[in-house]
Amino acid sequence: MNRQWLYAKQPQGKIGKDTFEWREVAIPEPQPGEALVRTRLLSLDPANRAWMMGKTYRDALQPGQVMSGFALGEVVESRAPGLAKGDLVEGDWGWQDYAALPARQLTRRITEAPIELLIGPLSVTGLTAYFGLLEVGQPKPGDTVLVSAAAGAVGSMVGQIAKIAGCRVVGTAGGQDKCDWLVKQLGFDAAVDYKAGNVFRALRAACPDGIDVYFDNTGGPVLDAALALANLRGRVVCCGNVSQYDVERPAPGPMSVPGLVVVKRLRLEGFIVMDFYDRRAEAEARLARWIAEGRLKAELDIFDGLETAPDALIGLFEGNNRGKRAVRVS
Amino acid sequence: MNRQWLYAKQPQGKIGKDTFEWREVAIPEPQPGEALVRTRLLSLDPANRAWMMGKTYRDALQPGQVMSGFALGEVVESRAPGLAKGDLVEGDWGWQDYAALPARQLTRRITEAPIELLIGPLSVTGLTAYFGLLEVGQPKPGDTVLVSAAAGAVGSMVGQIAKIAGCRVVGTAGGQDKCDWLVKQLGFDAAVDYKAGNVFRALRAACPDGIDVYFDNTGGPVLDAALALANLRGRVVCCGNVSQYDVERPAPGPMSVPGLVVVKRLRLEGFIVMDFYDRRAEAEARLARWIAEGRLKAELDIFDGLETAPDALIGLFEGNNRGKRAVRVS
Repeated sequence: MNRQWLYAKQPQGKIGKDTFEWREVAIPEPQPGEALVRTRLLSLDPANRAWMMGKTYRDALQPGQVMSGFALGEVVESRAPGLAKGDLVEGDWGWQDYAALPARQLTRRITEAPIELLIGPLSVTGLTAYFGLLEVGQPKPGDTVLVSAAAGAVGSMVGQIAKIAGCRVVGTAGGQDKCDWLVKQLGFDAAVDYKAGNVFRALRAACPDGIDVYFDNTGGPVLDAALALANLRGRVVCCGNVSQYDVERPAPGPMSVPGLVVVKRLRLEGFIVMDFYDRRAEAEARLARWIAEGRLKAELDIFDGLETAPDALIGLFEGNNRGKRAVRVS
Repeated sequence: MNRQWLYAKQPQGKIGKDTFEWREVAIPEPQPGEALVRTRLLSLDPANRAWMMGKTYRDALQPGQVMSGFALGEVVESRAPGLAKGDLVEGDWGWQDYAALPARQLTRRITEAPIELLIGPLSVTGLTAYFGLLEVGQPKPGDTVLVSAAAGAVGSMVGQIAKIAGCRVVGTAGGQDKCDWLVKQLGFDAAVDYKAGNVFRALRAACPDGIDVYFDNTGGPVLDAALALANLRGRVVCCGNVSQYDVERPAPGPMSVPGLVVVKRLRLEGFIVMDFYDRRAEAEARLARWIAEGRLKAELDIFDGLETAPDALIGLFEGNNRGKRAVRVS
């Protein structure tokens, strides 16, 4: 059997259990040119929620389809040239045990790294942090780098890479526990609990020299505060808007756009990690080396069993994750 | 006598006559190192209003001081090395007949161009359009360039320079007269009257291939629409926010920041023309040549007499200018 979670209906406000629907169908037969893949791990990402809201860098999800999501799996049968039984592959085949896919939708992974690292730190998540911070943010040694959702999959990597780049690093996260973890375990210079109130004042205290690079995973009040505290020619890496994904009515945009952008000559720039995939191999090699050397901690937050996927995603928006959240399917 | 307009008090909402106060005082004596300058022309700029709102790239205006503003004048007495009687100079000595200033606050102008061109098209205004569009906006031939406040001093130059750069050019302006002028006299491909309602729909019709570069002088609804219509990797040149300067309560920021910035990989970047002044000579030479060749029309909108300065500035925010507004003082 092929167990699946369907995307059942568009949420009004927060996603819930009824956003998804369980189904069991026959395992598909691979056609000529296709490989049959068995899912090992599913990546749970805030972007999954954004896809429910409309067209983004991909088409919007349509109720009734298998819930989309980045996944890692193993080829169990191949009718595709270049792919063989046992190959590890990644792709976006979503929340199901099996999928039959054409070879061009699969990326083969050849690596010595543990499989869990391939679902995030040495894949989309790590590369997002790496290219977003270093290429879009252009941090210089001594810069103050702020990152929001810093205890999350991307944010925790961004902060550590910024430390490797010689920056002073401040993160925002929800709750004192996460903040302590950022400072004590991941080497952040400071962390601000955005749930504790007055984010602006807390960030001003945590960033006495202002902010040179803000890696924005959240939008919302942290973006407002970061723009207000940005230094001349500060850069804002626009990676996500997670504070506005799981709400019924998005908040108004940042008041200081475009006013402060002009006055302080700021640069706000959006990116999608795939834009940098021609340099993926180089980046993955560096990330793998940093992890092996212990300079980069790849925190994993893994749920067990396909049936847990809805809870794992719902929990992301309740902020109960630390590091890379994934679901182990087989 | 030295006639002056003081900045009398901070406006609540729109500026009015009572924002300024007339005064007549003695002509200052230049001290050693200073030159006494007689004002010829005053530049009237939306930025003058922004300076009343707080610190920008310069300190906020303080009630009681001579109203600030960029000016062009003639040295009438010099105790400064390198400056002689009769020299044309520019600087920010504000709304008065005379000022005594140290040489470092004055820039000598050596040019054959008519003096009126030196207050805008061959100075701050023209350079703002030139560097903002070409360096920050990075237009490519065939791109669609949108510029707001297109009938204004900067906007009218931006549009024409974009045409020279091989782009399709669309402008927004208030009223059909200005829109006709942009298309018929300045060679814009299309113009949209933002006062006629539904700016988004009108811009969508005027930009069938989307927008690659938006030169933003206004913020507000045109910025919202431009972000919605921006193409992948579109650039927004953040030059001004004039829709929000002369209001009591600024509007909320653009809803699509940061959401669409991420999805479409947009770049929003602020700049101040002075950042590019090391390349001023080259840019002025090109602008002067384009004007001489008739490829760039430098529209002037000149009021006569220092006493008209408040009305000239108030009128800018009523949108009654076309091209570069200045006041002829002597």
